[in-house]
Amino acid sequence: MTAVAAGSLVVVGLGPGSPDQMTPEAAAAVAGSDDFFGYFPYIDRLSLRPDQRRHASDNREELARAKAALAMAAEGGKVCVVSGGDPGVFAMAAAVCEAIEDGPAAWRTVDVSVVPGVTAMLAVAARAGAPLGHDFCAISLSNNLKPWEIIEKRLVAAAEAGFVMAFYNPISKARPHQLDAAFDLLRSHLPADVPVIFGRAAGRPDEVIRTVALKDAAGNMADMATCVIVGSPETRIIARDGRPPLVYSPRSYRGGSA
Amino acid sequence: MTAVAAGSLVVVGLGPGSPDQMTPEAAAAVAGSDDFFGYFPYIDRLSLRPDQRRHASDNREELARAKAALAMAAEGGKVCVVSGGDPGVFAMAAAVCEAIEDGPAAWRTVDVSVVPGVTAMLAVAARAGAPLGHDFCAISLSNNLKPWEIIEKRLVAAAEAGFVMAFYNPISKARPHQLDAAFDLLRSHLPADVPVIFGRAAGRPDEVIRTVALKDAAGNMADMATCVIVGSPETRIIARDGRPPLVYSPRSYRGGSA
Repeated sequence: MTAVAAGSLVVVGLGPGSPDQMTPEAAAAVAGSDDFFGYFPYIDRLSLRPDQRRHASDNREELARAKAALAMAAEGGKVCVVSGGDPGVFAMAAAVCEAIEDGPAAWRTVDVSVVPGVTAMLAVAARAGAPLGHDFCAISLSNNLKPWEIIEKRLVAAAEAGFVMAFYNPISKARPHQLDAAFDLLRSHLPADVPVIFGRAAGRPDEVIRTVALKDAAGNMADMATCVIVGSPETRIIARDGRPPLVYSPRSYRGGSA
Repeated sequence: MTAVAAGSLVVVGLGPGSPDQMTPEAAAAVAGSDDFFGYFPYIDRLSLRPDQRRHASDNREELARAKAALAMAAEGGKVCVVSGGDPGVFAMAAAVCEAIEDGPAAWRTVDVSVVPGVTAMLAVAARAGAPLGHDFCAISLSNNLKPWEIIEKRLVAAAEAGFVMAFYNPISKARPHQLDAAFDLLRSHLPADVPVIFGRAAGRPDEVIRTVALKDAAGNMADMATCVIVGSPETRIIARDGRPPLVYSPRSYRGGSA
């Protein structure tokens, strides 16, 4: 009886959406894999060959998907798990690690690798100017996996310390209230005119980038595919005739009320 | 007398270093430009045609470089400013915006765009596992552009709120002490065994990824090309026989002492 040699599992970041923003490394990892696991719309982005197999699933099935992918890789498969953006930012790389830690010993023998990608906040920031040009943080607003009180604590800490913030998973049909609650909380800790950027489908033909003052920011300006960037008291807006404004956070700290 | 039509300025992120990690969008922006401004080693990464011109400068010349690039673009040039990683993260996009805000009106007529890239912390995180899989922040440790007290305030706020942290510009010959000071401060606010990842040249042949406990972390483990990731109390290490450990931050908040 011979033990099955473990296969490989690569977790690939496809970038924010435009094929032009997917790295050659990611494209090569896709070309070299046989079985693909991921959320339906990410799997649909791939141009797979007839010999490559799709195992698409719903976006709330991350841990089950990671386990299925690892089980196949442990049997010798060449498996690819895909994420939009970067797989290490609120995405599948952590789910795969969780499954390995809690799974059978054989899963630790799989050749696991992660291919980074351009994460959503970088794509949105690029279209707005340079809002992430100073210290910043990234927060998932989903309270499916952590208590809302922890999210509130982090929002206040980030605002008071002067971090720009990027919100992932800002809102969904099952969680319609978090984003408004976050804006309400931040209005008590930040100036009313701090810029808030709503970025959807950055870099794609259906891109929408909208900047409003914090006092006017509302949850219905976002959907689950939106990345929201909230400026710090130092973030500035440059008006330009006939061009959209540039929103940026200066590299230097100028002593705004943080 | 005819006014000169303004040209274009594109700020391009070349990714962490490997050509495989530069997006096709970035490659196209380079191919479509005539004049290139940037720090020497980034300019050296480009395979330029004989008709394309290099204007390399030192890494402490960011604002002067931005001004020179804008002046050329305002005269009709097709100008490219390059950054390593992503240009919006502690890099040239903010310097260009600062120059526009403080510069002549003509600079606001330039067609400015930003092409995002894979920033260093994402490349380092990918090689380690998924340390940025939960809420995180990015902090520049350079006190050239902000007071050290502000950096200390942000380190403490991030540690107490449970953010994983990525440090950019952790150390340089002119600033040899900040990283040790940051570790010393964090040792008062985080458990001694929190993982600290030192990532240098991620994705390149000379890559070095090293993980130590916070109690053992020292400034001399980094140089100016290192990105340092400090875990949260929730960050975990998965040991594997014959393979490097996986370091990851679970998507779920498990109630560690944050």
